[in-house]
Amino acid sequence: MTERPDTRPLSATALAEVIATAFLLIAVVGSGIAAQRLCGGNIGLALLVNALATSAALFAIILTIGPISGAHMNPVVTLAAAATGGFEWKAVPSYIVAQIAGAIIGVWIAHGMFDLPLLQISAHVRTGTGQWLAEFVATVGLLGVVWGCLKYETPTAAAAVAAYIGGAYWFTASTSFANPAVTIARAFTDTFAGIRPGDAAGFILAQLAALIVIYPAYRRFSGRSTAI
Amino acid sequence: MTERPDTRPLSATALAEVIATAFLLIAVVGSGIAAQRLCGGNIGLALLVNALATSAALFAIILTIGPISGAHMNPVVTLAAAATGGFEWKAVPSYIVAQIAGAIIGVWIAHGMFDLPLLQISAHVRTGTGQWLAEFVATVGLLGVVWGCLKYETPTAAAAVAAYIGGAYWFTASTSFANPAVTIARAFTDTFAGIRPGDAAGFILAQLAALIVIYPAYRRFSGRSTAI
Amino acid sequence: MTERPDTRPLSATALAEVIATAFLLIAVVGSGIAAQRLCGGNIGLALLVNALATSAALFAIILTIGPISGAHMNPVVTLAAAATGGFEWKAVPSYIVAQIAGAIIGVWIAHGMFDLPLLQISAHVRTGTGQWLAEFVATVGLLGVVWGCLKYETPTAAAAVAAYIGGAYWFTASTSFANPAVTIARAFTDTFAGIRPGDAAGFILAQLAALIVIYPAYRRFSGRSTAI
Amino acid sequence: MTERPDTRPLSATALAEVIATAFLLIAVVGSGIAAQRLCGGNIGLALLVNALATSAALFAIILTIGPISGAHMNPVVTLAAAATGGFEWKAVPSYIVAQIAGAIIGVWIAHGMFDLPLLQISAHVRTGTGQWLAEFVATVGLLGVVWGCLKYETPTAAAAVAAYIGGAYWFTASTSFANPAVTIARAFTDTFAGIRPGDAAGFILAQLAALIVIYPAYRRFSGRSTAI
Repeated sequence: MTERPDTRPLSATALAEVIATAFLLIAVVGSGIAAQRLCGGNIGLALLVNALATSAALFAIILTIGPISGAHMNPVVTLAAAATGGFEWKAVPSYIVAQIAGAIIGVWIAHGMFDLPLLQISAHVRTGTGQWLAEFVATVGLLGVVWGCLKYETPTAAAAVAAYIGGAYWFTASTSFANPAVTIARAFTDTFAGIRPGDAAGFILAQLAALIVIYPAYRRFSGRSTAI
Repeated sequence: MTERPDTRPLSATALAEVIATAFLLIAVVGSGIAAQRLCGGNIGLALLVNALATSAALFAIILTIGPISGAHMNPVVTLAAAATGGFEWKAVPSYIVAQIAGAIIGVWIAHGMFDLPLLQISAHVRTGTGQWLAEFVATVGLLGVVWGCLKYETPTAAAAVAAYIGGAYWFTASTSFANPAVTIARAFTDTFAGIRPGDAAGFILAQLAALIVIYPAYRRFSGRSTAI
Repeated sequence: MTERPDTRPLSATALAEVIATAFLLIAVVGSGIAAQRLCGGNIGLALLVNALATSAALFAIILTIGPISGAHMNPVVTLAAAATGGFEWKAVPSYIVAQIAGAIIGVWIAHGMFDLPLLQISAHVRTGTGQWLAEFVATVGLLGVVWGCLKYETPTAAAAVAAYIGGAYWFTASTSFANPAVTIARAFTDTFAGIRPGDAAGFILAQLAALIVIYPAYRRFSGRSTAI
Repeated sequence: MTERPDTRPLSATALAEVIATAFLLIAVVGSGIAAQRLCGGNIGLALLVNALATSAALFAIILTIGPISGAHMNPVVTLAAAATGGFEWKAVPSYIVAQIAGAIIGVWIAHGMFDLPLLQISAHVRTGTGQWLAEFVATVGLLGVVWGCLKYETPTAAAAVAAYIGGAYWFTASTSFANPAVTIARAFTDTFAGIRPGDAAGFILAQLAALIVIYPAYRRFSGRSTAI
């Protein structure tokens, strides 16, 4: 899931990352808006819908875009792939820019579909040590699943990531953003899935900390230092 | 999923499309009726049930009928398959007629099961630029998933399409019809899943627009102009 | 899924059918009891839980017992397998007895777990032409899925059947019994999943009618008269 | 799923069991806390969320850790694997200690994420013959699924176990602990998923009884006495 085929130019794979990440945010933000409107004030039901729709979308997106760009949709995943030798460092900046741009485009498309102002800033408070620990745990788990499932075919890896994120919406206290590009984009929506811009930094730091902490564990279990 | 085996006569494969699309509409309309009756007025819960039942049915139908007719169940998918060389143009009219006929038959079977008048016309308003954008996005995504998953075995492609549609019920503002045959048939039911006949045209135009827009993107990523 | 390995004695495979069908009824009846107790009077939520738990159990049971006995758990499936040459006629009576016995045992185990009287008779009314049509449609679909998925490996067939039944809980008006052994056993529980004994006959006749009607269609599409 | 690769030292595989079981308890306890907070007092909805999140996590964990340690996460599974020759007896104590330690660590991480006191003792009453029968049935089923799915690849076995446990949350009266390490750890949380320490013994005895009862059945169907 983390490989980028050599035979395609970087412009094509980066564009694929834009499209994949845009659809991911359409799923996250769009289903959040619909769920909040329709679930009669039951936040639990709305979050269940949000988690299921995100998980289903992730599965379909990874299957569809994975063979083109790897379908990282996540700077931490791209950095992790580069750190373990599965992705070329020189393509990392393009990917991260593509992921952030795609994520924000996806938020705007969701707003457009639901007849909301395109440009918004979230007022949703998500902060505190519990939330930061949750993002740390969520990202450690995500990277573990991504690395652990490299040995499987794409459909199995896609199912594993989708199941993990769907579950982590609930078993982490932060609803498992686990993705800096997603975190940045969700600051641009004042809907169910939003996060206050001032709180985004804490989330992103926790996500990056997870990468730094789990990387040695990966090396320990894989018995490899760089190459996948 | 889009191939039609040469060894079967068109009459057999078109009949298979009738059956497949009828069961799809039984699932969409039948589960909508049951959900609205049983969910105590919580529209969110009813739509969750509707989405899950549709997704589950899609998975089973594609696995069962896919090897016979491709299990398109959707004129846009049939047109897309023909445009990319994966389906013979001369079979397109038969397929589209079969899909529309099957879809309407499915609606009537659902009405019969739930002791409702067979012939109905929907009064459910579904219109506006947000809804049209949603149908455009929903259909772009569906075609992307269908094309992107041609490389997998049928079970994986079936799971991808089922997951995508199940999620898109929620992350598009229109509950993702993404299918002209389904749209026409849903005008014939004044239940949860219905759409006013006057609004169906807007949906269908948005679906066809998606095909026109995404086709060049498919050619760009696949590197092919006609043949799958 | 419908084959019975020759290398095992019938006593072993019939015992496997007892166990499989018992677990299926534990799932159907047990989850119905739990759902009704916990879902605060929302019948829709309770039926969603009932459908999901049944579907999940079916998937696990078919994977586990399928390679031993075929995991029919259903006289209509056993008869269909025999009619198409995939199962020996002389083993049919043992299988049907095993399925009915296992189903009733499963109901009693569910009652025991939930501290209810073991012996019960249902007062749940399930009758009328809509319900009978629904059982007919549900069984036609189930047999179509079973036959259509013979070409796949067991995991795919198990997923298809589980998805179909989970969806059909909602898209048929009868919650899709589609199984005479299950119907008989559910007459012995006066809980969420029960059916009045007097209504069971109509359900079973509709299920058998489905087998008679769909068998020629199977022959038409498969191009075979007897042998699978 | 029950094999421990010979090429890794026991310290590495036992550590993998710690991590796997910790994540399992994060999922069980964390999603229980979140569900109870967000589901507006509807216990049914909260338990549905709890079951789905646990099932999703199990799938991802077994795929990720299974190839390293077998991802038993359960002393009964480890004992069953040893009894059938699929696991070396001398590694059993390390595994059981690792599972219990990991489970308790996972509970504490869940508490930390949700800003709760780390050290807690449950007051949740779970006792009586119905509950014990339920744990017996739940564990018989789990072992049956584990043994029955040894013949499949890891993704199928992981899906079967995840589906079974997700369903068994509902179709057993005890919400299917089916795991002594999980039972012990859940005594250390006074949240949705907790169990009174005094009630844990009854659960664990029922789980061990299931192993003793089903072992001969396994031998009968597998035709083997010791070796997998």
